[in-house]
Amino acid sequence: MKNTATRCCDVAWTDFACRFPNFSFMISSHHPVVRTVLCQKSLISWVGEDWIFLILLGTVMGLVSWVMDFFIAFCLRAQKWMFTGLYGSVFLQYLAWVTFPVVLITFSAAFTQILAPQAAGSGIPEVKTIMRGVVLKEYLTFKTFVTKVIALTCALGSGMPMGKDGPFVHIASLCGALLCKFMSLFGGMYENESRNIEMLAAACAVGVGCCFAAPIGGVLFSIEVTSTFFAVRNYWRGFLAATVSAFVFRLMSVWNRDEGTLTALFKTSFRLDFPFDLQELLAFAVVGIASGFGGAFYVYLNHRVVKFIKKQKSLKRFIIRNRLLFPAVVTLVITTLTFPPGFGQFMAGKLTQKESVLTFFDNLTWAKQGDAHQAPYMGYAKAWLHPQASVFVTLSIFVIMKFWMSIVATALPVPCGAFMPVFVIGAGFGRLVGESMAAWFPDGINTNGTIYPIVPGGYAVAGAAALSGAATHTVSTAVIVFELTGQISHILPVMIAVILANAVAQSLQPSLYDSIIKIKKLPYLPELGWGNHEKYNIRVEDIMVRDVRYITLNCCYRDLHNVLLTGNLSTLALVESAASMVLLGSISHAQLQSLLSQQLSRTRRLEHIRQRNVASSQYSNQEEASQGACIQISNEESSFSPVRPISQGKISPVVEQGIEIPTGPHDNSDFTLKNLFCTSQDSDDLEDDGDVKDTMTIKEIAEWEEKQLNEQINFNNCRIDPAPFQLMERTSLHKTHTIFSLLGLDHAYVTSVGRLIGVVSLKELTKAIEGFVPVNGLKLRPALASFRDSGPTGRTITDGETTELHWLGERNREYVPSESDERSQ
Amino acid sequence: MKNTATRCCDVAWTDFACRFPNFSFMISSHHPVVRTVLCQKSLISWVGEDWIFLILLGTVMGLVSWVMDFFIAFCLRAQKWMFTGLYGSVFLQYLAWVTFPVVLITFSAAFTQILAPQAAGSGIPEVKTIMRGVVLKEYLTFKTFVTKVIALTCALGSGMPMGKDGPFVHIASLCGALLCKFMSLFGGMYENESRNIEMLAAACAVGVGCCFAAPIGGVLFSIEVTSTFFAVRNYWRGFLAATVSAFVFRLMSVWNRDEGTLTALFKTSFRLDFPFDLQELLAFAVVGIASGFGGAFYVYLNHRVVKFIKKQKSLKRFIIRNRLLFPAVVTLVITTLTFPPGFGQFMAGKLTQKESVLTFFDNLTWAKQGDAHQAPYMGYAKAWLHPQASVFVTLSIFVIMKFWMSIVATALPVPCGAFMPVFVIGAGFGRLVGESMAAWFPDGINTNGTIYPIVPGGYAVAGAAALSGAATHTVSTAVIVFELTGQISHILPVMIAVILANAVAQSLQPSLYDSIIKIKKLPYLPELGWGNHEKYNIRVEDIMVRDVRYITLNCCYRDLHNVLLTGNLSTLALVESAASMVLLGSISHAQLQSLLSQQLSRTRRLEHIRQRNVASSQYSNQEEASQGACIQISNEESSFSPVRPISQGKISPVVEQGIEIPTGPHDNSDFTLKNLFCTSQDSDDLEDDGDVKDTMTIKEIAEWEEKQLNEQINFNNCRIDPAPFQLMERTSLHKTHTIFSLLGLDHAYVTSVGRLIGVVSLKELTKAIEGFVPVNGLKLRPALASFRDSGPTGRTITDGETTELHWLGERNREYVPSESDERSQ
Repeated sequence: MKNTATRCCDVAWTDFACRFPNFSFMISSHHPVVRTVLCQKSLISWVGEDWIFLILLGTVMGLVSWVMDFFIAFCLRAQKWMFTGLYGSVFLQYLAWVTFPVVLITFSAAFTQILAPQAAGSGIPEVKTIMRGVVLKEYLTFKTFVTKVIALTCALGSGMPMGKDGPFVHIASLCGALLCKFMSLFGGMYENESRNIEMLAAACAVGVGCCFAAPIGGVLFSIEVTSTFFAVRNYWRGFLAATVSAFVFRLMSVWNRDEGTLTALFKTSFRLDFPFDLQELLAFAVVGIASGFGGAFYVYLNHRVVKFIKKQKSLKRFIIRNRLLFPAVVTLVITTLTFPPGFGQFMAGKLTQKESVLTFFDNLTWAKQGDAHQAPYMGYAKAWLHPQASVFVTLSIFVIMKFWMSIVATALPVPCGAFMPVFVIGAGFGRLVGESMAAWFPDGINTNGTIYPIVPGGYAVAGAAALSGAATHTVSTAVIVFELTGQISHILPVMIAVILANAVAQSLQPSLYDSIIKIKKLPYLPELGWGNHEKYNIRVEDIMVRDVRYITLNCCYRDLHNVLLTGNLSTLALVESAASMVLLGSISHAQLQSLLSQQLSRTRRLEHIRQRNVASSQYSNQEEASQGACIQISNEESSFSPVRPISQGKISPVVEQGIEIPTGPHDNSDFTLKNLFCTSQDSDDLEDDGDVKDTMTIKEIAEWEEKQLNEQINFNNCRIDPAPFQLMERTSLHKTHTIFSLLGLDHAYVTSVGRLIGVVSLKELTKAIEGFVPVNGLKLRPALASFRDSGPTGRTITDGETTELHWLGERNREYVPSESDERSQ
Repeated sequence: MKNTATRCCDVAWTDFACRFPNFSFMISSHHPVVRTVLCQKSLISWVGEDWIFLILLGTVMGLVSWVMDFFIAFCLRAQKWMFTGLYGSVFLQYLAWVTFPVVLITFSAAFTQILAPQAAGSGIPEVKTIMRGVVLKEYLTFKTFVTKVIALTCALGSGMPMGKDGPFVHIASLCGALLCKFMSLFGGMYENESRNIEMLAAACAVGVGCCFAAPIGGVLFSIEVTSTFFAVRNYWRGFLAATVSAFVFRLMSVWNRDEGTLTALFKTSFRLDFPFDLQELLAFAVVGIASGFGGAFYVYLNHRVVKFIKKQKSLKRFIIRNRLLFPAVVTLVITTLTFPPGFGQFMAGKLTQKESVLTFFDNLTWAKQGDAHQAPYMGYAKAWLHPQASVFVTLSIFVIMKFWMSIVATALPVPCGAFMPVFVIGAGFGRLVGESMAAWFPDGINTNGTIYPIVPGGYAVAGAAALSGAATHTVSTAVIVFELTGQISHILPVMIAVILANAVAQSLQPSLYDSIIKIKKLPYLPELGWGNHEKYNIRVEDIMVRDVRYITLNCCYRDLHNVLLTGNLSTLALVESAASMVLLGSISHAQLQSLLSQQLSRTRRLEHIRQRNVASSQYSNQEEASQGACIQISNEESSFSPVRPISQGKISPVVEQGIEIPTGPHDNSDFTLKNLFCTSQDSDDLEDDGDVKDTMTIKEIAEWEEKQLNEQINFNNCRIDPAPFQLMERTSLHKTHTIFSLLGLDHAYVTSVGRLIGVVSLKELTKAIEGFVPVNGLKLRPALASFRDSGPTGRTITDGETTELHWLGERNREYVPSESDERSQ
């Protein structure tokens, strides 16, 4: 630690030099020795600077994004090439059309299963959990990074309705975490935990930023999706990194001669002088409200599908047994339906997602073009004009089919996000409304002589932003579409649509990511959403658990043992005495567990035997001959010793027989952990203390342990958190929520004049926020509660759903999600 | 309280009805009585909904903004009309040109001085302070609102280089606060403090949003400028309100036939297909870096000017005496310099700020137009072409002159902001670079055959965003310019310029608003900016004050008295005993003060006399005759009683004589407060207890008070904060900063296993962050410290600068800024 502090001073001293390395060379170049020292130091701290890290992160992610896009485009082109090359034979065309995606998805699924099952899915829910300070095992490793990149490329290359953005947030976080590790070789400050969280936040911004070439939208979207509270001082980090990544991402396109210069990804060219009429705002509002309902319905269906797959025993068994068959079958069904000469002709099946979006955002009015013959200059958009079906029919079929397809596709065990599919569906829906408006008012809405026809593309932009905003509960999708299209002229209609969509969706369903968090049973704190008056009037005393488990300063190990068997929180309160109840601090379960097992450890028992032997030898030196038989007996019993430590791990099995065995899964796992740990330790001890032999009988051990348990606890070597978070009984729920989400708390003690009177954990808070707390005898119900309860998605929290955490210390919380165990087997 | 809770349940019960009032009518219309009750209830809670409040706020502010713009435009037109009407006589023209602004500014200054001096200036620093939870007196009243609106209209109508946005943030906060009060007539939830802070955050977003018709930029800018931590759940509030306000603001223009439809305020029409060449990014980066230095220099000069006006005694006296002469003189000088036929011809003096920006953002290349004769279609931009001077000269003069002019103008005691002037200067500078580039590469930078000439307007956009971003330390100015211009095609160059400008400016100077906060000595916590490695390695134990003032549970009033005389924090720690030092809670100074004065109060003394009388009368009933003289003497002395309470207020003056009298300004003011309070109370007591006469001599009183002081303190009626914020000694500075800014703390206790070992206040934290803490014996210096120290703006914090707070309770902090006292006299 001192070393770090010293280096830190040097860092500050050479701060100027680090910041302007060229200046420092000029200043110091007079003296070669000074220069060399300065160079070395400045190099080290220069590389350690935040902005170097951020630029590096942005560059790497921009490159990764571009390379991935390159391979995805290659895969999609290959599929099309095969399809068109086999023109003439529909069956061969079908085979080519179907085989390619099935192979890619199967490979992706297999690759994910084998290398890193935690790479499956979007990753945003996990990143959100990590940002709350919970350590998710294996979620930020190099293996996961590689797996996610390769599997995602394959999955997206299949042309299935899947997105890149969610996984990219995860990939960027992975990249950031790995880069942090790499950078820590140069400077110690990268080992700081809170700094790493800040860097992770920037990495999330990079993920979205380089995916859409949308630096501002990326920053805002990542904030909305992953954080509950955001440090403004962290703002520039996200902006810098996201801008660099977007820049590199687009720069590669220019270098690759795809583009002439740096432009938007889905560049539009709507007219600037009169983008929309005032009256059209009503139609935009309708798009927004409908998207709100659509987004909520999407989340609801998504929840149902995932739950169904998890719950249905026969289906589950089938999936587990035929891990790769399920993705293959789903892919087969979806690609069959999009087969262009088949049903796909009614939903522009031959267009990729990107091409679809480009057509939706174009500047034409399809409904006006009449039929397909009159549109030679339409390019891709010709796919929407069917000789038998009108544009409205093809667009409607597209929206409906893609809706369920993307829900099923994103439930597959491959890395994939739902943002892009939802975005495409929203754009399609918006285009549908826009085309309808254009058909309804062929000459535009009348305004003072000049005719300004309606631009359906503008509706597509608003629809895309609104639906994706509704599904993810974000407003920043508006910014993303401006950056994606390179035009901001529709700002007011888009903002209105997005806000209305959010208002509707937020009052109906949780966000897509929160819904997945719930399904995966990650630790979760619901947001205080729209219209939550009652939250301001609930107090902590209304929701706290008054029956707190605690230990006192002068309690004995037996009390500790009893308390440990019953508690379910990660820490125990330490109070002065049962009478005063003055809260002194909190101690983690793990700490207490080790205190207890230390007290009853074999080492101490052997020490006891040694002391007893010494005492008895002093005493028995004279009587040795007569007592020989007795010692002989003890020596015989010591032959059991190699077996003992294993059961020893279970914290004095002899004593435990008289006590209820814990039934909770939490306690069991803790004990097992302890078990493993103690076994190895005791084996070591056994070798070290080879000079003393375990001469005690089981009965003696039981007696000895009983005696040990009656001793008073010695807290000297125990890590105590002296300032666990305390609330007053009159603290409002609103404030409690703020503090919990700000500080990433798991629980807080409620005190009154220093006296412990209760405890509030995430569980109680979640219950209270979701409206299941009786206040003055009346049960509060959230808005539209009846709607929510009707389905199996009912938001009722079952006990232990959100607090199944196994803490391994105060700050290094580690969590094994219960979801991934199926996949990891 | 119970009443609120009950109403709250009703609110929840009718939640569905409130949200969809039409549905509820349908459901309940069968029964008239049910309907009436439901109607009433739904009306009340419906009006109480957040979104109603936000839409109302947005609408009101949009209207206010438009009406103000209308009158400002009217004033500016009137000045121009007079100027052009007097064509022929230069002297009369000059008189008209000069008189109008001088009258307006003088009126504005006088109006502000008389009605609400706190309305002067930008208001953002004060709003930032209020958002930290500090109550600033008079800053959120109706009077201030009216004053600020009228005075700001006049000030901006004068055409001086002043801005609208800063004051508008304040006006919107005022409007929000007033609306909150108004809404609390309908529902109780508006009385909640944390809710009000949330609403204030939304109001700030509205302020910027309706000023520039930039909803997204408004939200982001207000977050960056006023918050340190931002609740994401509060995000939609800002977006909704800002969107509504921007919508209403632009809608009014449409209704007033100024515009055909809703468009951007400074609409640009740069080409979309090839907005800029890749190589031009270098020039944009140069604009960004130069703007960074310019912005820092602006803040530095601004600081110097304000300090100079405050410090120079002769100047100060002059200003105070001739309160209105100073603004008039400054206005006279500035308007004289911009007089179009005079020096103003070299700096386009006849253009208003808005017109200047419009010309800077236009699509022409002035340098190409040669001289003024060849440009009949240039419109306003003709002002920049001077027959004798090139465009480069006029632009340079404009930038330099406006630079100091706006610094002086924004230092005037009228409501005005600095954002818009800085924005204009930045746009001018950007245009200058752009024109130079266009002159350097007349045919554009060579790219594959096609010639794309350089667009100088794009540089103007980047320059405006970069300079305003540098001065205010915000990145969101980039978003604001996109919304202002209605084009986002220059996103990457603008982002790069803004980020570079921020990087340079943030490492040189604090932001414009933080600089004003420092000058006004508002409570202040510096940000952890760029490159702060050392912050991660400083621990609380390095910076905490170990000599904590505390009281114990069983201490006597004398100890309390002694402690109160020496402490300087707002609260005192309550520990169990001096030996154990277990922290039980904290008690505010005011509480303790009242405990002490209650103990020594006249009421208690009279009670004592009464009891003594009763006791003595029981005893002396038999001896009454012989003791008559003694009672007579006491009665005589009671004639002094009307005089006594005044000195009584000073908490036992007799006792105090033996004790050091406090010297700090804080203690004095506290005692004075107490003094006033006690006097009136005791006078009341005197009348109430008329039956008992104060029969004690001064000596007796002294004795009685001595006895009272030796009694043990009774904490029963004392409000104790049972959970003051505690830190561990190993907590890092970084984390401490986070917690302080998150929770708006003033100080926190440092404990070790429940034992109080130190205290950290804002003062220590500020010192540590600004780099004046010796770590391992070495004094840490911030980056470029030598540059900072050279001027009188050196960031050395003098003792007591930031902690001159007089708390009046734990949550209702009130603060009288030391700045405004000159003006308020």
